[in-house]
Amino acid sequence: MSTKIVIIGGVAAGPKAACRVKRLMQDAEVTIIDQDTLFSYGGCGIPYYVSGDVSDEAELRSTSFHMVRNEDFFEHAKGIIVKSGTKAVSIDRNKKLVKVENVATGVKENIQYDILMIATGSRPFILPIPGADLDGVFTISDLHKAIEIKDRIAKGKVDKAVVIGGGAIGLEMAEAFKDLWGVETSVVEFMPQVLPRIVDKPFASMLTKHLRDNDVSIFLGEGATEILGKDGKVTGLRTANRTIEADIVIMAAGVRPRTEIAVDAGLQTSPMGAIVVNERMQTSDPSIYAAGDCVEVMHLVSGKKFYAPLGSLANKEGRVAGDNMAGIPSTFKGAVGSFIMKAFDVCIGATGLSLDVAIAEGFDADVALTAPSDRAHFFPTESVVCFQMVFDRRTRKVLGVQGFGPMGDGISARIDAAAAYISMGATIDDFGTLEMAYAPPFSAAIDSINAIAYVADNLCDGRLRTTTIDSFLEWMDDFSTEPNCVALDIRHPQEAKPFVEKFGKNTWIAISYNEIRRRYKELPTGKKLIILCDAGTRSFEIQSFLDSVDLNNSLVLGGGFNMIRKIGVDWYPK
Amino acid sequence: MSTKIVIIGGVAAGPKAACRVKRLMQDAEVTIIDQDTLFSYGGCGIPYYVSGDVSDEAELRSTSFHMVRNEDFFEHAKGIIVKSGTKAVSIDRNKKLVKVENVATGVKENIQYDILMIATGSRPFILPIPGADLDGVFTISDLHKAIEIKDRIAKGKVDKAVVIGGGAIGLEMAEAFKDLWGVETSVVEFMPQVLPRIVDKPFASMLTKHLRDNDVSIFLGEGATEILGKDGKVTGLRTANRTIEADIVIMAAGVRPRTEIAVDAGLQTSPMGAIVVNERMQTSDPSIYAAGDCVEVMHLVSGKKFYAPLGSLANKEGRVAGDNMAGIPSTFKGAVGSFIMKAFDVCIGATGLSLDVAIAEGFDADVALTAPSDRAHFFPTESVVCFQMVFDRRTRKVLGVQGFGPMGDGISARIDAAAAYISMGATIDDFGTLEMAYAPPFSAAIDSINAIAYVADNLCDGRLRTTTIDSFLEWMDDFSTEPNCVALDIRHPQEAKPFVEKFGKNTWIAISYNEIRRRYKELPTGKKLIILCDAGTRSFEIQSFLDSVDLNNSLVLGGGFNMIRKIGVDWYPK
Repeated sequence: MSTKIVIIGGVAAGPKAACRVKRLMQDAEVTIIDQDTLFSYGGCGIPYYVSGDVSDEAELRSTSFHMVRNEDFFEHAKGIIVKSGTKAVSIDRNKKLVKVENVATGVKENIQYDILMIATGSRPFILPIPGADLDGVFTISDLHKAIEIKDRIAKGKVDKAVVIGGGAIGLEMAEAFKDLWGVETSVVEFMPQVLPRIVDKPFASMLTKHLRDNDVSIFLGEGATEILGKDGKVTGLRTANRTIEADIVIMAAGVRPRTEIAVDAGLQTSPMGAIVVNERMQTSDPSIYAAGDCVEVMHLVSGKKFYAPLGSLANKEGRVAGDNMAGIPSTFKGAVGSFIMKAFDVCIGATGLSLDVAIAEGFDADVALTAPSDRAHFFPTESVVCFQMVFDRRTRKVLGVQGFGPMGDGISARIDAAAAYISMGATIDDFGTLEMAYAPPFSAAIDSINAIAYVADNLCDGRLRTTTIDSFLEWMDDFSTEPNCVALDIRHPQEAKPFVEKFGKNTWIAISYNEIRRRYKELPTGKKLIILCDAGTRSFEIQSFLDSVDLNNSLVLGGGFNMIRKIGVDWYPK
Repeated sequence: MSTKIVIIGGVAAGPKAACRVKRLMQDAEVTIIDQDTLFSYGGCGIPYYVSGDVSDEAELRSTSFHMVRNEDFFEHAKGIIVKSGTKAVSIDRNKKLVKVENVATGVKENIQYDILMIATGSRPFILPIPGADLDGVFTISDLHKAIEIKDRIAKGKVDKAVVIGGGAIGLEMAEAFKDLWGVETSVVEFMPQVLPRIVDKPFASMLTKHLRDNDVSIFLGEGATEILGKDGKVTGLRTANRTIEADIVIMAAGVRPRTEIAVDAGLQTSPMGAIVVNERMQTSDPSIYAAGDCVEVMHLVSGKKFYAPLGSLANKEGRVAGDNMAGIPSTFKGAVGSFIMKAFDVCIGATGLSLDVAIAEGFDADVALTAPSDRAHFFPTESVVCFQMVFDRRTRKVLGVQGFGPMGDGISARIDAAAAYISMGATIDDFGTLEMAYAPPFSAAIDSINAIAYVADNLCDGRLRTTTIDSFLEWMDDFSTEPNCVALDIRHPQEAKPFVEKFGKNTWIAISYNEIRRRYKELPTGKKLIILCDAGTRSFEIQSFLDSVDLNNSLVLGGGFNMIRKIGVDWYPK
């Protein structure tokens, strides 16, 4: 008799595991159960469907060779039975039964399994605030909602949108509303920055400026307190500080694992409710596997389990589950939390731990910043990119990398290479010699990922002493906070001149990089010098030199004016 | 007294080491000696200077902040003495002296060193054929030659160009001539493919087709036998098969380490003449370091020393040499031979070993091919990319990855991530779960690098059986070579139809992917089936199914029609 494999959940991990195990065991009877009638779609594509980049929802449900992944496709192309519109109600582990109910008819039945897999995914977190049930309040949780949102926009019913939550989905939705439909769009984020815990503040600030430059309003550190309505329909959102008019409110405040059925069946779950699995994606019941947004996985840097609801990981976990259901001992060792996002003309990416998280996890963490050219500086398509590297002073291990630059695959290239390296435990020194494929149209001879490792190396060894962007901006806002400080601007005299004129010679000294060796005696003694250039690299050279002539009270602004300009400041001379 | 550090060679490794050691030891006296008057330039940028992408040679000698790296710059900005136009003639290791000669005046002097570094680079290989000394024959070896080439083109003196050598520099020069100047351009390559030893034949073939589609003539397997001339000036090139008219001939037949001074000084060199160094870039004389194109380095996959003359490696090696000269024990462990190149609208990249080289090195090597979407298949900017993975059947280690796709940073991203991983000894299984940052504008949920690992996994475990593109093309050219073979085309019936019409039902069977399970009994028994689709993925699924119904004499065409179309064949139905 053929092995009965039952998989609960028909998006990402479920179908991936089903197809894999069926290929490996053609005589197995593989059944997918999904409560929805639309399944096996690319959920991460929803913002691009709403924006119009993807014209038809069927494209999100299609294969790359343009077949819609419906029940018929699974049956005939894959040999897999899909019971859609069928809710899995409970699991009887002793009898190896799943009790299901047809959502439309209410008819119940029991489905026998030899091996079960739970791929029930996640559900959006609904903020417990008044008005959350008004017409016009949406989460980005399934294709039906996406279709309805797009339908409303296309019918001209949406002039003003508010997104609650400045995470990836919230910001992608904000771009979708603004960029292609011209909807007046606001984002409200409870934390003091967008993409909290994913990137650190300087990177969040650069992204925020770019979004604002593209007419998306961003309100930070403001919790949504009430969704306002009239006649049952959304009219706006209230925060502690303001009321924002809206025809539509998107609640994108994160997701939670959907694991009631696993909990009820007595499977081990984490404090946050995610299913606990081993590296072979097995739950605490060896006959039951789980994968995707409903499980927690190992963080390969922190060494702790974490919740990483991403379609890309779900597919990888699903394949490993499929292998193991067929007796192949594949393992999914964990993840480093890679992240990438498009926002209008820029791209932001991250992998590993942010500085905030690394410190919270107890690492002796520090951060290096730089802002070099993304390719040979003489090549016409060259742009400035910003990178940071978080490292552990004790072990010299690289804990995380973040990047910000023009839209394209250049940031991806560095984040992906860093992710591969970090997952193998690479150190600052490994990153210094990481071999990025080099030709002038693609990279600099010293690639930006090598450059940031060099900065980290100098910082870790105590040769480089930096100030943070935050500290520098505080000082610029009010020089009296550090009256002993003086800026030493080593850029071209023409670049430095308006700053000297604006802030005065006692605060802003301009001596060009190639003149310091001849003119360092003009520098005031007893002052703390903040050395400023565009990327931070020349400043380090100057710091090394000044140390050698006993002017050793200086700090370098990592990332330099390249990052300051991208963050945006009101004191920058016109 | 300050330490005297002398560095012979002023391009890439030399200046990098000089600047690094000076920053670390501000009181050291650092001197660079270079026989040329133009130095510290980006040699890899020469093709882009000739093409006009880079308008002025000074840009190749400038920093990213637009200062020309001349003697004055090194003295004032870096505190480094540059003796340009000064040839290092010999080294007296006992007295720690370098004997130098001013190239213009012939004046000789001795320069004392405490620590010496040799960064003499490489010289182009001059083919020993008649006419190599004619006016109009150039190598791409220094900036003077580049300036003269561009000058001739700009003055309208170049209508027809021939490039000898289908390596990276030769092909980049061919594009420079053709793309921006419209020069009638031919490339002559002695080996039967372009980029020999760098990529394998299918990838070389895709590149060759694209170059030919852009009106660059490519002649493979043809050695240059004579450069023809009249009145001392080039008129053409003769090969075994033809004569090609030319006003200019570029000799790009590889480079050789320039190490006479090291050999004469009794330093250990390799059989090919490269200086032998340890991981700290020290030669057999502990007081003498070497780095850049004049040394050999460890290949991190083969475990053997190899010659890798690349500006990116030279800079990394130079920094390590600089560290060690200052007493910091940094190491350069080796390289994996990463490669990337733009050619008109496409990009080709590679890292690690090609299949040919892996087999020659004794690995139990096999190769997986695939041709998936480079990002979410529903995203508007999606394109097909081609990847191969070379792996060792015995250890499951990945030995190399090659990629071909549209111009941009997408191929770089995969090659760079693969290089990081391969240098750490990653296996097929590691690549299967490699975490590429995912969002639809950047990648597919199953990234192409994961996809190619899946193919390798199935191949290595014997679940997938493939035929090579070469074997398939041989069969297509003459069905009688394997009369027992039948093509099984599982693409959409509309795609397969013209093939069935052209080749007949006995040779070409069309049953769509989603109909095989219902119609497999129509397939002939006793025949060998070659399963065909666009990327190779669906074909594998069908092979798995057919095996289960005892139709187990089938082979899959890896890479499928996506690669066949990019290679170009004359039998493809219009």
